[in-house]
Amino acid sequence: MAKVFDAAEVAKHNTPESCWVILYGKVYDVTDFLSSHPGGAKIILKLSGKDATEEYDPIHPPGILEEELKPEACLGTVDPNTVSKDETPAKPQEPAAGPPPMQNLLNLDEIEEVATKQVSKKAWAYYWSASDDKFSKRFNNEIYRSILLRPRVFIDCTKCDLDTSVLGHKLGMPIYVSPAAMARLGHPSGEAGIAEACRSFGAMQVISNNASMTPEQIVKDAAPDQVFGWQLYVQVDRKKSEAMLARINKLKAIKFIVLTLDAPVPGKREEDERNSLVGASTPVSSGVKAAERSADGTPDVSGPGGSGGVGQQLFAGTDPSLTWQETLPWLAKHTDLPIILKGLQTHEDAYLASTPRSTGRALDTAPPAVHTLLEIRKYCPEVFDKIEVHVDGGIRRGTDVVKALCLGAKAVGLGRAALWGLAAGGPDGVRRTLQILADETKSCMRLLGVETVDQLGPQHINTRMVEQQIYDGPSALGPLRRAFRAKL
Amino acid sequence: MAKVFDAAEVAKHNTPESCWVILYGKVYDVTDFLSSHPGGAKIILKLSGKDATEEYDPIHPPGILEEELKPEACLGTVDPNTVSKDETPAKPQEPAAGPPPMQNLLNLDEIEEVATKQVSKKAWAYYWSASDDKFSKRFNNEIYRSILLRPRVFIDCTKCDLDTSVLGHKLGMPIYVSPAAMARLGHPSGEAGIAEACRSFGAMQVISNNASMTPEQIVKDAAPDQVFGWQLYVQVDRKKSEAMLARINKLKAIKFIVLTLDAPVPGKREEDERNSLVGASTPVSSGVKAAERSADGTPDVSGPGGSGGVGQQLFAGTDPSLTWQETLPWLAKHTDLPIILKGLQTHEDAYLASTPRSTGRALDTAPPAVHTLLEIRKYCPEVFDKIEVHVDGGIRRGTDVVKALCLGAKAVGLGRAALWGLAAGGPDGVRRTLQILADETKSCMRLLGVETVDQLGPQHINTRMVEQQIYDGPSALGPLRRAFRAKL
Amino acid sequence: MAKVFDAAEVAKHNTPESCWVILYGKVYDVTDFLSSHPGGAKIILKLSGKDATEEYDPIHPPGILEEELKPEACLGTVDPNTVSKDETPAKPQEPAAGPPPMQNLLNLDEIEEVATKQVSKKAWAYYWSASDDKFSKRFNNEIYRSILLRPRVFIDCTKCDLDTSVLGHKLGMPIYVSPAAMARLGHPSGEAGIAEACRSFGAMQVISNNASMTPEQIVKDAAPDQVFGWQLYVQVDRKKSEAMLARINKLKAIKFIVLTLDAPVPGKREEDERNSLVGASTPVSSGVKAAERSADGTPDVSGPGGSGGVGQQLFAGTDPSLTWQETLPWLAKHTDLPIILKGLQTHEDAYLASTPRSTGRALDTAPPAVHTLLEIRKYCPEVFDKIEVHVDGGIRRGTDVVKALCLGAKAVGLGRAALWGLAAGGPDGVRRTLQILADETKSCMRLLGVETVDQLGPQHINTRMVEQQIYDGPSALGPLRRAFRAKL
Amino acid sequence: MAKVFDAAEVAKHNTPESCWVILYGKVYDVTDFLSSHPGGAKIILKLSGKDATEEYDPIHPPGILEEELKPEACLGTVDPNTVSKDETPAKPQEPAAGPPPMQNLLNLDEIEEVATKQVSKKAWAYYWSASDDKFSKRFNNEIYRSILLRPRVFIDCTKCDLDTSVLGHKLGMPIYVSPAAMARLGHPSGEAGIAEACRSFGAMQVISNNASMTPEQIVKDAAPDQVFGWQLYVQVDRKKSEAMLARINKLKAIKFIVLTLDAPVPGKREEDERNSLVGASTPVSSGVKAAERSADGTPDVSGPGGSGGVGQQLFAGTDPSLTWQETLPWLAKHTDLPIILKGLQTHEDAYLASTPRSTGRALDTAPPAVHTLLEIRKYCPEVFDKIEVHVDGGIRRGTDVVKALCLGAKAVGLGRAALWGLAAGGPDGVRRTLQILADETKSCMRLLGVETVDQLGPQHINTRMVEQQIYDGPSALGPLRRAFRAKL
Repeated sequence: MAKVFDAAEVAKHNTPESCWVILYGKVYDVTDFLSSHPGGAKIILKLSGKDATEEYDPIHPPGILEEELKPEACLGTVDPNTVSKDETPAKPQEPAAGPPPMQNLLNLDEIEEVATKQVSKKAWAYYWSASDDKFSKRFNNEIYRSILLRPRVFIDCTKCDLDTSVLGHKLGMPIYVSPAAMARLGHPSGEAGIAEACRSFGAMQVISNNASMTPEQIVKDAAPDQVFGWQLYVQVDRKKSEAMLARINKLKAIKFIVLTLDAPVPGKREEDERNSLVGASTPVSSGVKAAERSADGTPDVSGPGGSGGVGQQLFAGTDPSLTWQETLPWLAKHTDLPIILKGLQTHEDAYLASTPRSTGRALDTAPPAVHTLLEIRKYCPEVFDKIEVHVDGGIRRGTDVVKALCLGAKAVGLGRAALWGLAAGGPDGVRRTLQILADETKSCMRLLGVETVDQLGPQHINTRMVEQQIYDGPSALGPLRRAFRAKL
Repeated sequence: MAKVFDAAEVAKHNTPESCWVILYGKVYDVTDFLSSHPGGAKIILKLSGKDATEEYDPIHPPGILEEELKPEACLGTVDPNTVSKDETPAKPQEPAAGPPPMQNLLNLDEIEEVATKQVSKKAWAYYWSASDDKFSKRFNNEIYRSILLRPRVFIDCTKCDLDTSVLGHKLGMPIYVSPAAMARLGHPSGEAGIAEACRSFGAMQVISNNASMTPEQIVKDAAPDQVFGWQLYVQVDRKKSEAMLARINKLKAIKFIVLTLDAPVPGKREEDERNSLVGASTPVSSGVKAAERSADGTPDVSGPGGSGGVGQQLFAGTDPSLTWQETLPWLAKHTDLPIILKGLQTHEDAYLASTPRSTGRALDTAPPAVHTLLEIRKYCPEVFDKIEVHVDGGIRRGTDVVKALCLGAKAVGLGRAALWGLAAGGPDGVRRTLQILADETKSCMRLLGVETVDQLGPQHINTRMVEQQIYDGPSALGPLRRAFRAKL
Repeated sequence: MAKVFDAAEVAKHNTPESCWVILYGKVYDVTDFLSSHPGGAKIILKLSGKDATEEYDPIHPPGILEEELKPEACLGTVDPNTVSKDETPAKPQEPAAGPPPMQNLLNLDEIEEVATKQVSKKAWAYYWSASDDKFSKRFNNEIYRSILLRPRVFIDCTKCDLDTSVLGHKLGMPIYVSPAAMARLGHPSGEAGIAEACRSFGAMQVISNNASMTPEQIVKDAAPDQVFGWQLYVQVDRKKSEAMLARINKLKAIKFIVLTLDAPVPGKREEDERNSLVGASTPVSSGVKAAERSADGTPDVSGPGGSGGVGQQLFAGTDPSLTWQETLPWLAKHTDLPIILKGLQTHEDAYLASTPRSTGRALDTAPPAVHTLLEIRKYCPEVFDKIEVHVDGGIRRGTDVVKALCLGAKAVGLGRAALWGLAAGGPDGVRRTLQILADETKSCMRLLGVETVDQLGPQHINTRMVEQQIYDGPSALGPLRRAFRAKL
Repeated sequence: MAKVFDAAEVAKHNTPESCWVILYGKVYDVTDFLSSHPGGAKIILKLSGKDATEEYDPIHPPGILEEELKPEACLGTVDPNTVSKDETPAKPQEPAAGPPPMQNLLNLDEIEEVATKQVSKKAWAYYWSASDDKFSKRFNNEIYRSILLRPRVFIDCTKCDLDTSVLGHKLGMPIYVSPAAMARLGHPSGEAGIAEACRSFGAMQVISNNASMTPEQIVKDAAPDQVFGWQLYVQVDRKKSEAMLARINKLKAIKFIVLTLDAPVPGKREEDERNSLVGASTPVSSGVKAAERSADGTPDVSGPGGSGGVGQQLFAGTDPSLTWQETLPWLAKHTDLPIILKGLQTHEDAYLASTPRSTGRALDTAPPAVHTLLEIRKYCPEVFDKIEVHVDGGIRRGTDVVKALCLGAKAVGLGRAALWGLAAGGPDGVRRTLQILADETKSCMRLLGVETVDQLGPQHINTRMVEQQIYDGPSALGPLRRAFRAKL
């Protein structure tokens, strides 16, 4: 006759070493079965030592228990009088102070939500709202939604990896952290915290010109093969930029310079300006005005200007007079590092960047990157063969990463998303951000039947809807090509 | 002189056997008229024994009463003092406990609403929220909204029937229940309850690989001509799949195998994962990670993974290494049943499925099915002549069914809709679901001037708006066709 | 020295015969100026006898008073102590019971709103909600919004009139009331009330087959040149239809028959069915089922059916077996009146209707009429030369009327809008509806530089956005044309 | 040893002449650094005399303090016991009565919001709601949103100015104030207040025919080179118009006449009419009716009409009979000023305006101006070479201004926006409006790599999405061109 157990006795066996469960009044030892449970060990361990019938029954066909377990796994029955029903199994626990465990966050929106709550406790919250206008932000992301995937079937997708390279440097994933300023506002570990997270994945990081830590501090603990870039805003006072380049040249972890071209004058960041009014006793003027003053040195028509918000401070002093003819040669004099041109939005500029006369070795498009990629493909696809194209902006999902790679991008940058990760959980938050995107990217590649990132191509996506938006007006490309050939 | 009745006397005649009504102070015996009332008997019976003047008057032209009734039907007048006005005719009754009568539900949205309330009372509610992401779900349905019907006039539509066949088996309607897991979560009758409902309509049912009942239990009460398919996810441990196929081969009600190809790795089901956190004391990781582990056997970068939600459990162990070359021959060795390939989304894969070398006999597209159908029509319409194409996903109305059939589908599958029906009212709820769609489908066919489902074609719908979304990038079809011809 | 008046004295002069106002402390007699005030007399009369300074000042340039009035119009000054400021000039009056004056309603939406309130007090309110589904209703109207007008300048638009003709009968406007059932539900004057309103404008009215009054009652007070049509649903019992036609043939005010073709089976009117549940003690089935039973005489699979809502009652008994070959000849045997075919939605059917073998003399498209008109123009524009095309559905503004006329329609029908007008204010409400649309239509014609409705053409509208939706699939027109020529 | 300061001592140095701050417990004299701080002096002055550590620390990399300041700038340390933390630094001040300082308003929406609050305190508020219908208003603005910019990089944008000219008159910006009636309703300074603001920027102003001040009053304080236009609605009584022209001819500040063509009958302004009902004791009729009466002199069908709202009053008496043949020659007899034709919406009318027979010297399109510009470019781009094209309507951002200029416009008009500015803050509010747009326009030009407004062209914008809406129906241009050539 079968042995009868007290529930209290069963309850002791709730570890991976000895795991019992009660099912239909019987007691089973499922310790050996843990590793082969199709649903994983954890779901069983959660119920170990308890009556699991209610959760087990409606999702398992009858008879499967006998099929999967050996007869001797059934130890006996439980004394029903000793079993106390858990009356409140679904009651959520009291929310703990501080952020939730990073592992519980399932996508980038959730991370942003947690980060927003964390930083809203600080007076600096306003910095974070200083983003580009809502239309652009939404457009940059929605344009990925309007590209459809073309999954293929019957392709062995057992293997799938994200390895790639940038400018000859091996990387663990085609996702990098693009320059984002003032990381310490979000978390005390700052840009070094981001570097720590990137190290875990072999991910590349571009250090902002306006970082809240010095480049030396950020790369201090770099792994031997870790790849950094450094973002340069050329200052009106070139001596300052040259001194900075001299410092950068000494840091072996920094493999290239990112020359930012799309903010010769800062965009208008109204949220930022508005927040700088808090507690201020004097009215402030439009940030645009402040920028113009520093740009051309002449006062505005309407009288006394203001200081603008944090965003304005960061860009003050940037040189608006950069040109193809002057700037790249100057830069070549002060560094041997390869140059990535950041902020290109037209096929004409992409073409110029790809000509040998440009010392650029890669380019990084500005939003909407999808448009720029499709413009290049339409007008001058040879650019993809000559230089690497990186894109930046609007990435929220691994499918977005895949779509950008299919369109010809070599790597895909995260800006604000990395900062949200840092603010949500420090280095662990950035790691979680990268992990989610890596997981989603691989899942998507498998659906497409693709093993490596360089196999991704236009045949894997349907861009029909976006193509109807791509520029088809007058192109400067013809004259540019003729001029280039004439100079050969 | 006319007889004068008490209202109480009139009130007794409120049955189909003796039906009196008061109109304009006169008492009429309308028993004989019940069957010929253009509006049907019920509306009269509802008012039988009562003064119907207020409801009768404003919708009937004067004089029609005399036209329709024989003079002797007027029995006399009613004593006005005996008539008591019903003061609260429109007050709704107290809502009863449990679901409303299924017959009161008029469309699939209402059934889903009722089902949601039913299952939300259970702890398992979270299972039902584990659906594909909201964007896809909405897109799959809205794409049907953007197809317009082209009704034709002056076509005799007295006759209209839904009879069709799949793989040579006669069916009562072109609507089938596609594989949907874990039906017993919604209703104790489970997949057998769905089978019972399908039996009433001659509708086909595909049994999920993850059914909460065994195939034997589900087909136990099958009618002699009832048609079942069985869905196969190929396991990494092929022996298990082979054993399962051996069991299936013995069930005569199962006429074909549906080989699922579009989930070599499971999609990310965030709602599902989130719900598995309720009451859990340890953080869980992204379900994607769990799936990857089972897929490639290597641990993830970020450390210990979790078990994921219910959805993750179901897919664990699925073999991601299926290929055209290996899998179909292996399958042919273990069953003589025809194979339907499920989850194709591109014209290239549809073409491959239609070649003689494929042992596939039909295919079932994945969402958005409308895109796949239009892609096939655009690039390789011959596929429709060679194999049957079934579609699945996004069906909410009979017009959706008709539109899919016009585009070339042979049969149209319901997934979640059948589960909602089951959860709302058990087998009766599924029957109601099928009845509503059948009624709507026939109504729509009549508007188009069509008597049988095989008369439906592209001339009956305007797909102009959707065509602007269909892929026109590089096609692998040319090489595929050449390769195929070379092998002939 | 100027005379000084008491405010009380001034207050007596508040009529068109003697109109004084106080401005800047002075008293003016503006009686003679009333007729020449650019803003009209009424605005002055509203302020007559009072101090108008506050309202006058900010909208009139200084000095214009002296320019416009003769010196003797200034009678003197007012004693400021006698002027009491009206403290609450802007306070709205208590809303009166019943509908507001019709003249205060400025567009069709406002009329619908008032009507909804009126009829919601009745138990029959539910009838009105029984409309086509919200998607179609919105689509039919929004499609007019996506057509842009092309106003022309420097064209003398002093004259502008709406005169037109239908089937040779002169009409005062190209707007008619299309058949709408059960008008007495909305207002006791019923369809005769609509006829009364149409008489004021020389507008055409088509009497519904399901009118709540007899045709004889509706046309009783017709003006000598008033134009009516009569809508025929062919009954399964043809004798009934023939008897009805015999009655119609005797009514000289009825100039044509409208044969309705687009509702061989009724659409599904869920709101209507739902409302028939109010107070009902037995479950009802889908209305679609009821219709099918009457259509093919066979019981449905799912057991006992119900009666459906009001809408279902009206359509019961309609013959679904009409054909080009049989029905028109039969009709010609029973009436000499011209036939308008109602409910055509494709260019193929429009072409068939325009061939001499059809005894049709005009056709009336079903929604979305804009699509049908553009389809005809694209595939067989000769149809417009051979027969008149009327359209119906979605009209909310005079610009909608103009757009339909530009696309080739000869007349534009109002369905529900006329019923809302009737429900809002009886015949006056319908008159207001027609007046608003007539005013808006003429305003729009003037903007386009057009004097008469037959000058309107495709050059006056930009349909580019809609054209991208027009059917371009397989057309049955080629075979139809060949067949037609072969028979010549 | 370093000197120790009391916080009170430090607090005295809070001016540009002597500016101290506390950082990390040390006291710095930053007076000399004020002018070279990349973030501007103001942000430092805000913190002068205080402990700035909390705000300084998280946005400056360590060590930068020593880099930027000379050693002697460090004066010593602060006695920590004397420093009192400011506990409520972020608490917003009590909102003051009246409008906020104009400088705090960052975009046109904010100005409109403030203006709405200001004027809502007045009984005349309803005047402001009398705008075109919401669909058009939204469409006119959203169409600018659907045009994308094409920023170019590596172009020296140090210089950037807005200078331009209209009809040979030099202007400080390509933005002008278009005719808007009744400015004194918004602010007592009225149209003269707008003129004052335009003077600060060298901006052009067109005076409304319905201004609430006389032209003489408006131009009284004009600068020697200030440019005004005057808007003419031709009256039915031509003598009045001729008298007015005689007055205008004498005003040297007025450089041209704007002949308004797009309102021969006023549009329907329902909000305006509705508001005229407030406090009225008699019902009013549709304003359309009132307009028609004055237009053709015949009474309407439906009996007594009303006076309509304010909008109706303004347009009463306008002559609807203008033609190319009659009106321009008549006008030429009464003025030597150049004529701008206002309200053109089609390429046909634009072409007619550009022929030598027209005495027009420029034209001003009506909304949607973007459509008209693209229509001209598509059908008759030579128009841009022959006459100036001004546009009006829907401008909310400097990017909108730039887009219109890229499409070929010579100048861009603000209507309601100027009135909102005036209502928000009088002349300062209009100045703020113009300043914001000027700043935004220059910022956008710099992003495009453009120094002067005449460099802007179609290559700077992507209009692909809008082009799909441009008219491609029958054009009257062919016959017009032939007729024009025949007359040469």
